[in-house]
Amino acid sequence: MTKKKLRYGMVGGGPGAFIGEVHRRAAKFDGKNILVAGSFSSDYDKTLAKGEELGLEEKRLYKTYEEMAARESELKEGIDFVSITTPNHTHFKIARAFLTRGISVVCDKPVTTSSAEAEELLELAEKHRALFCVTYTYSGYPMVKEAKELVENGELGDIRVIMGEYPQEWLAERAEMGDNRQASWRTNPAEAGISNCMGDIGSHIEHTTSYITGCEISQLSANLNTFVEGRILDDNGQVMIKYKNGATGMFWASQVAIGNDNGLKVRVFGSKGSLEWEQENPNYLHFTKLNEATKILSRGHDYLGPAAKKNTRIPSGHPEGYFEAFANIYNNFSQALLEKKEKGKVKEEDFDYPKLEEGYRGVKFVEKCVESSNNGSSWLDF
Amino acid sequence: MTKKKLRYGMVGGGPGAFIGEVHRRAAKFDGKNILVAGSFSSDYDKTLAKGEELGLEEKRLYKTYEEMAARESELKEGIDFVSITTPNHTHFKIARAFLTRGISVVCDKPVTTSSAEAEELLELAEKHRALFCVTYTYSGYPMVKEAKELVENGELGDIRVIMGEYPQEWLAERAEMGDNRQASWRTNPAEAGISNCMGDIGSHIEHTTSYITGCEISQLSANLNTFVEGRILDDNGQVMIKYKNGATGMFWASQVAIGNDNGLKVRVFGSKGSLEWEQENPNYLHFTKLNEATKILSRGHDYLGPAAKKNTRIPSGHPEGYFEAFANIYNNFSQALLEKKEKGKVKEEDFDYPKLEEGYRGVKFVEKCVESSNNGSSWLDF
Amino acid sequence: MTKKKLRYGMVGGGPGAFIGEVHRRAAKFDGKNILVAGSFSSDYDKTLAKGEELGLEEKRLYKTYEEMAARESELKEGIDFVSITTPNHTHFKIARAFLTRGISVVCDKPVTTSSAEAEELLELAEKHRALFCVTYTYSGYPMVKEAKELVENGELGDIRVIMGEYPQEWLAERAEMGDNRQASWRTNPAEAGISNCMGDIGSHIEHTTSYITGCEISQLSANLNTFVEGRILDDNGQVMIKYKNGATGMFWASQVAIGNDNGLKVRVFGSKGSLEWEQENPNYLHFTKLNEATKILSRGHDYLGPAAKKNTRIPSGHPEGYFEAFANIYNNFSQALLEKKEKGKVKEEDFDYPKLEEGYRGVKFVEKCVESSNNGSSWLDF
Amino acid sequence: MTKKKLRYGMVGGGPGAFIGEVHRRAAKFDGKNILVAGSFSSDYDKTLAKGEELGLEEKRLYKTYEEMAARESELKEGIDFVSITTPNHTHFKIARAFLTRGISVVCDKPVTTSSAEAEELLELAEKHRALFCVTYTYSGYPMVKEAKELVENGELGDIRVIMGEYPQEWLAERAEMGDNRQASWRTNPAEAGISNCMGDIGSHIEHTTSYITGCEISQLSANLNTFVEGRILDDNGQVMIKYKNGATGMFWASQVAIGNDNGLKVRVFGSKGSLEWEQENPNYLHFTKLNEATKILSRGHDYLGPAAKKNTRIPSGHPEGYFEAFANIYNNFSQALLEKKEKGKVKEEDFDYPKLEEGYRGVKFVEKCVESSNNGSSWLDF
Repeated sequence: MTKKKLRYGMVGGGPGAFIGEVHRRAAKFDGKNILVAGSFSSDYDKTLAKGEELGLEEKRLYKTYEEMAARESELKEGIDFVSITTPNHTHFKIARAFLTRGISVVCDKPVTTSSAEAEELLELAEKHRALFCVTYTYSGYPMVKEAKELVENGELGDIRVIMGEYPQEWLAERAEMGDNRQASWRTNPAEAGISNCMGDIGSHIEHTTSYITGCEISQLSANLNTFVEGRILDDNGQVMIKYKNGATGMFWASQVAIGNDNGLKVRVFGSKGSLEWEQENPNYLHFTKLNEATKILSRGHDYLGPAAKKNTRIPSGHPEGYFEAFANIYNNFSQALLEKKEKGKVKEEDFDYPKLEEGYRGVKFVEKCVESSNNGSSWLDF
Repeated sequence: MTKKKLRYGMVGGGPGAFIGEVHRRAAKFDGKNILVAGSFSSDYDKTLAKGEELGLEEKRLYKTYEEMAARESELKEGIDFVSITTPNHTHFKIARAFLTRGISVVCDKPVTTSSAEAEELLELAEKHRALFCVTYTYSGYPMVKEAKELVENGELGDIRVIMGEYPQEWLAERAEMGDNRQASWRTNPAEAGISNCMGDIGSHIEHTTSYITGCEISQLSANLNTFVEGRILDDNGQVMIKYKNGATGMFWASQVAIGNDNGLKVRVFGSKGSLEWEQENPNYLHFTKLNEATKILSRGHDYLGPAAKKNTRIPSGHPEGYFEAFANIYNNFSQALLEKKEKGKVKEEDFDYPKLEEGYRGVKFVEKCVESSNNGSSWLDF
Repeated sequence: MTKKKLRYGMVGGGPGAFIGEVHRRAAKFDGKNILVAGSFSSDYDKTLAKGEELGLEEKRLYKTYEEMAARESELKEGIDFVSITTPNHTHFKIARAFLTRGISVVCDKPVTTSSAEAEELLELAEKHRALFCVTYTYSGYPMVKEAKELVENGELGDIRVIMGEYPQEWLAERAEMGDNRQASWRTNPAEAGISNCMGDIGSHIEHTTSYITGCEISQLSANLNTFVEGRILDDNGQVMIKYKNGATGMFWASQVAIGNDNGLKVRVFGSKGSLEWEQENPNYLHFTKLNEATKILSRGHDYLGPAAKKNTRIPSGHPEGYFEAFANIYNNFSQALLEKKEKGKVKEEDFDYPKLEEGYRGVKFVEKCVESSNNGSSWLDF
Repeated sequence: MTKKKLRYGMVGGGPGAFIGEVHRRAAKFDGKNILVAGSFSSDYDKTLAKGEELGLEEKRLYKTYEEMAARESELKEGIDFVSITTPNHTHFKIARAFLTRGISVVCDKPVTTSSAEAEELLELAEKHRALFCVTYTYSGYPMVKEAKELVENGELGDIRVIMGEYPQEWLAERAEMGDNRQASWRTNPAEAGISNCMGDIGSHIEHTTSYITGCEISQLSANLNTFVEGRILDDNGQVMIKYKNGATGMFWASQVAIGNDNGLKVRVFGSKGSLEWEQENPNYLHFTKLNEATKILSRGHDYLGPAAKKNTRIPSGHPEGYFEAFANIYNNFSQALLEKKEKGKVKEEDFDYPKLEEGYRGVKFVEKCVESSNNGSSWLDF
């Protein structure tokens, strides 16, 4: 049995980190992965403390990610993949260190802070035949997969309108001035890159809508705003989009939308039907066919398609949430990597996890939004 | 008592008309108005039939609106105002005919099909000291008035983001090809003017958001679409907006949004709080203060402000709907006109009904949207 | 045209009354009825004032209902029916006065304060060939009619479970101690009869569920409570029910349910499907077939049946509310009475308004609930 | 670190089992427990297969629970507790086997199939100083804990009305005739005991409402039904309740409620406020104070109390679900057991997990419901 598990290491996720802990819970949720190595913090004492708490061997706790990449790649039972859960600006160099040693990567989004860097990672991943998973969490929800499948099956007809929004409240005041680490790095250009709000959550709109519809952006106009005084990066952004297939779209991402916690919502309208999904109540999907009553599809039912069924664990009405969606990302990635380990190769497209290409597209999306906004919200080709 | 009632006539609203009947029910709902004259159709037999059904005297059933305007203005007990419920392209000339004779007007929106015409009406109304009400129905809902009052009272702080949408399904196919008169005139440029969707329902977004927030548009970029093959005018439209106060906004109007009946929804976000209101469940208003739980305000409660209280009739939990909102428009207009009749003059701003200036602004909004969309969705000053 | 209208008088509905005003608006809503006579108050000055406000002739304003019944029955163009909108304890004698003179009646529920009285009215109505409508408002909603029709069409299969509730907050404190007339008469046994809460709103649950399902109560056990100190009558009540067809049911009515305005909700579960309807959002009906996704049926759509379509006026998404439901009661009753006037007789069962038999059943229901509750919530045959 | 973990074994949870897998995921979720032993099935081959899959040592895979209890109690590093996830009728004897050897127990509800058995377990647990946790899952949700805390803090005043319901659809047809193991054992008296529906899900209503309110049942009347032909045990049940403090309550549990997945819903009304919580959207709690607007409390916010905060892991708007609620049960139990291991004793009441007393009360509740229903739904003292 143990032979079926993957060993992995983590960079980031030290004491007090939010997303690193989410990764660890998600990675172990379906029993496919064991955490065996870590460089959890730039402060080695913190890495040691976290490593001890997690029951890791001290010799596999590293002062730097470079040391970890170098050492683990030489071990007989070294890590199969690394999970990168650090602030945005470090993703690129960490990912590069592991890819160049042939170690597969799971990395938070945005995968890099520039599309040039993302392109370099694409080359490295291909060259070293490593798998690369970008944790666009929301594509892990079963009902998002159902949405994608309904579109692919033609249930919506031709896609006409795509509406995506992601409102949050938490930065409506200057939370970054206190000890809120989540706020301080996201609003700091040195750590977050060229964008805060659009990079952090607008990128999720871009991914979730692309994942569901497959529609490709042709042109966009963006208006990024900084409403909270003293803040440098954007805390709100709106994008109008023209798609290659003639569809039209609107995205709105906001961290100053009082009354909203984590309100990712996607609506897709086609010539034959429509879909509506909200992340805060993720087990349901509203589906309407032309001239018919709206149906509330519920996770876990027999009437759903195979993708939704494969990515769920408990009966309908027993809510699955954010952790389980995250676990689906890890589970599908791990299945691909296990098959690669066993057979020497794998057809990545058979496995439903967010690929590096999607991460690259997301970085480019944020770049284009910033460029448009800086030029009077001019329309840009994508 | 009878002396307190206003006499009015109607142009349009013949057999089979939808909105004319709504006007008549709304006008009589609060007992202030009596229908005494009409030119309900260009087919005089239809006018006669409708007039008989409504119990009007035959001598006050007119073949043309011109005849009606001329004759009624000479009667001792002629009409106090006229209600215009015809297709868009006729509003201007009908309104002009009555205004020039000093007869006040209630008119559907869009008030005209060009801003030049609307400006002319503004001059005429002022010159002839007539009152003019544009039936932007949705501003008649009590909870929309509560929203306006909360903004005015500073409960939201500085307005940052305005989100308005109005999705409908009913033109997702080419309904205008059958005997659906509502569809055929709206999609016909000769009757509807330069826009179908943005003119018909986008204008309601513009009005409702302006009414609530008072924010003035500085610039806009619009993308109007015609998704249904063979159709000439727009059936979907998206607009990105920059406001003079620094706020940012997005409007989406659609008649091809399968799964939506009449989904006007307005959200307003400020530095201290936010509001959310949906027309299909109009008796509630979501209100959130920074860092507090969202409150569901319910029509009819003591905790609401005077505007909401004044414009409602029954206790909370007994739903009021579209007719009652429409009746509020008439009721407030009639109060103003009764005071004018009694005192010879009236301060229009003391009465909460949509004025001609708002109708003018709406026409201009639609013009700017069409102009922008025809120019590659370029940004235009408003 | 005028010949098609019915003339009616009103007892009750004086200055400050709530439900009398609702009756008047509902009666005129569809243009079938004209108010011509009234005895609006036991204080004749108030009757005169209200009559003047409503534009009635003074000679048809009466000091007492007896005088009104006597006089109007002798007039050539006397009233076709009377609307009784007084407190409960007076319904019986007023209705009797008009019925004995062959004048049809519209009466608030509970139609009497004892089943013996209701039985007497039944005899009188039959003897004098008068029509009798009990204003069980909620059966006037189009989607309640759709629910009834779905059950009748067998879409739910055999009915198994019926859940009805009607929570309100407004008497959670002792509102009757102030100048709240609505509260004071309802909580006063001399005016309300043997029950406050179960009589006032529990009776609506009984009617709405019976109307939809046709199921007949076999046995019941009730627990009526008086939670607010100093109050005499019940302000909360729960009833467990066994139906003759083997179905089981629960009713809960409360005036101390903080957080609820007027929350009538009915759910019906059968062997093949289920229904759910809420009065506060009345334009929608949730309908689920076994093993299928729940559908949200929306008023105004083509997919609905004839009863819902007949009892609505505006397109889907334009909400109809309490007034329109009430107007449907009047409209259907008036159609029956107009046909009776024209043809001399009418098949009452062809017209969809609440009949006196239903009013009688409701009174008996309340009596049984009180009897059970007074006997330790013992089970009683119905 | 490893010293901080508890070792546990499992009885039940073999191939194809639903709840056993939930237990394992929940037990490991917060890193406090390691599964080291198992008797997963009465078929030893299945135990071996599951054990291998889970990576357990073969010597700790047992043919019977008796062998497991005997052997593990003698090992130096034997299990700290056992998780019992078998059908109802076996809980008692398995729990007894471990308790008598001083091994603590986590057990599904109903903890036994008779209150006499539950009393015996209470004596054994006390005698052998073992901890005992009954997995009433729904009390693990953070917002249920918030509800309990609001009641304890007096925010609702005196409790007046308690409404609990738990509708499901899944047994609306005779699912037990196929290969649905979940259905077949629950509907089989030999495995489930005296009740199916009330035992399986009605017991959750009883627990969740008791947990939140602390109100004690004084009397009850129950009507249990078997709607699906050929079935022996109940598939629907309604209970009317009188509480010792004067409150009144209604419970409805159903497995034939088409359109419902797992709809546990609890509403509590007091003299000063009310609460409403639904399991299918568990991250929100509706809270209303007298005469104020309803507030939507959202998990993860600063305005919540310590219990909700302690039992959550991620920010508001990132939904937690069924697994996380279950994990909270394990986590709180494990904290108690870890403290007991360390200090030799523990104050159980300081730890928020469902105790054996609650399991006993639940069994008694089901017994009383069955007894009442079998006696014409007579009222019984509790």
